Amino acid sequence: MSKVSILGAGTWGCALAILLSGNGHDVTIWTKIENEARMLNENRKDLKNLPGAELPEQINITLNLKEACTDRDILVMAVASPYIRSTAKEASPYIKNDQVIVNVSKGIEDKTLYTLSEVLKEEIPQADIAVMSGPSHAEEVSRGVPTTIVVGAQTKETAHLIQDVFMSDVFRVYTSPDIIGIELGGSLKNVIALAAGVVDGLGFGDNTKAALMTRGIAEISRLGVKMGGKLETFAGLSGIGDLFVTCTSKHSRNWNAGYLIGQGKSMDEAMKQVNQVVEGVNSAKAALALAKKNEVEMPIVEQINYVLFEGKSAKEALSDLLMRDKSKEYKTLEWD
Amino acid sequence: MSKVSILGAGTWGCALAILLSGNGHDVTIWTKIENEARMLNENRKDLKNLPGAELPEQINITLNLKEACTDRDILVMAVASPYIRSTAKEASPYIKNDQVIVNVSKGIEDKTLYTLSEVLKEEIPQADIAVMSGPSHAEEVSRGVPTTIVVGAQTKETAHLIQDVFMSDVFRVYTSPDIIGIELGGSLKNVIALAAGVVDGLGFGDNTKAALMTRGIAEISRLGVKMGGKLETFAGLSGIGDLFVTCTSKHSRNWNAGYLIGQGKSMDEAMKQVNQVVEGVNSAKAALALAKKNEVEMPIVEQINYVLFEGKSAKEALSDLLMRDKSKEYKTLEWD
Repeated sequence: MSKVSILGAGTWGCALAILLSGNGHDVTIWTKIENEARMLNENRKDLKNLPGAELPEQINITLNLKEACTDRDILVMAVASPYIRSTAKEASPYIKNDQVIVNVSKGIEDKTLYTLSEVLKEEIPQADIAVMSGPSHAEEVSRGVPTTIVVGAQTKETAHLIQDVFMSDVFRVYTSPDIIGIELGGSLKNVIALAAGVVDGLGFGDNTKAALMTRGIAEISRLGVKMGGKLETFAGLSGIGDLFVTCTSKHSRNWNAGYLIGQGKSMDEAMKQVNQVVEGVNSAKAALALAKKNEVEMPIVEQINYVLFEGKSAKEALSDLLMRDKSKEYKTLEWD
Repeated sequence: MSKVSILGAGTWGCALAILLSGNGHDVTIWTKIENEARMLNENRKDLKNLPGAELPEQINITLNLKEACTDRDILVMAVASPYIRSTAKEASPYIKNDQVIVNVSKGIEDKTLYTLSEVLKEEIPQADIAVMSGPSHAEEVSRGVPTTIVVGAQTKETAHLIQDVFMSDVFRVYTSPDIIGIELGGSLKNVIALAAGVVDGLGFGDNTKAALMTRGIAEISRLGVKMGGKLETFAGLSGIGDLFVTCTSKHSRNWNAGYLIGQGKSMDEAMKQVNQVVEGVNSAKAALALAKKNEVEMPIVEQINYVLFEGKSAKEALSDLLMRDKSKEYKTLEWD
């Protein structure tokens, strides 16, 4: 039995708490929000965003960050990406040397263009930071639907520790040394999901959507490899795996926002109608900035930025993508 | 304007004929079957498998193989995979040195385990053999839905020739030197589509299906790279691109057959109900044989073979996949 605390009581944090408690671990959930803590304690059998799932009684819910961070084998960072830095800063004084922290949030920090593990490393330099990502709707994980995921860690030992704690009959954990690749795949795929929604909204076919998804992953890989990630990772669970679930689920906010834009709505109208945070919009901006910084060609990211922020019509953007110069599928593959 | 003959008058052959004719080329379709030639000539506005598409009058339809193979810039091989060898053998005497032939059929030859370009090379050694594959429902191509595809050729010059002839405003052609990778991706993805159907038929979730697809492509890549293909290709249009369209389309015969098996039908019952050739069943056998020959671990291919040919229950097979030893995502990625 291990002691695990989850920082953040959102949908994903709660689903992982249920999984870990089912694996026999001693689980604590921390939240900063009093109202959220009370609601969770009172409605363990009726979680708002996880229909049918139950938060076991033995899961401790706390508002005390020091308590949550003390004497734990693993800390899971599950707060929404905009709150990662502030939470990490606040938690850092309570965190021991070599504390294993697994980040499960996704995103790129606006101002610094840091991945979230880089933010954590800056704020909690004494910790051993790992990440976990893959095709994993929280609601399905909470219901015990068979799921796979990949853990990226700095050492094999840490990767195996996390694998042992999370793995169950229906939750299969793979390990990898490629932290940056896993993070970039998980964050940037939302941009492609948004673009796939646009294609669907325009009324094009399966061929077009598959093209967009494949070429989308190709350009994310180009950027990711330039930034130190491995090609295999983008062809894996946190790359195409996560893209599959995001682009084919009508529940995806990113896909939905794109769909509305494809149908002719402006970005503002689409945001209003989806009425939730659409991660892909922020990631689109960050991806373009990273592409420029790393001098990588990302035509889909570029066009989706024109559509989102410069009022270009979705149809024209798609047409411009198709009319590009004739090209090799991968510039790196050469004839002998 | 180029002169192009298409050998084979199936759905894909006709869709490509319409595309090429629209590009302004002189197009001939050859078929061995008198009845098929007559039907095509009589019903140009009402093609059976391409609703709404029209075969332009200037497309010549012939039963004369010598005529079809003489004085052509490009020959397109579009007969169903079981007839590739016999057609090639029959055509070979009429085919000039360095004739460019683009194979667009998919499959692995049962007895030899050769890819189709290898079969063509054996039967028409004087020709310059290329391949074309990617996410391309024929029906969408015939309607002008934006589509991307990749051409693999032995030289850059041949790749560019084919690219120039096929490319249009809505048909984007990429080039690659990786012939074997393109062929293996296109052929073996049907096995994974079948397995994805099984997962859907069992009633599992999006997480499970995405896992199956991602790990499926990972094992196809392992085999493909061992056989000389490039990892990039399996992460490209003829790999994940083609897998996207096949696994997410309810029209896919492979997916459908798998779905019925997941719901508890036997392979024979499923075949009877789908009532068409299910390529994935043959490919599953071939993939297992190739895995053994090349000493590559392919757990999904192995389990689908047990289900198809040894009466193992689909549920048990999936459970055995999940219960495998803890593992790295990619064996080739190592910690420093």
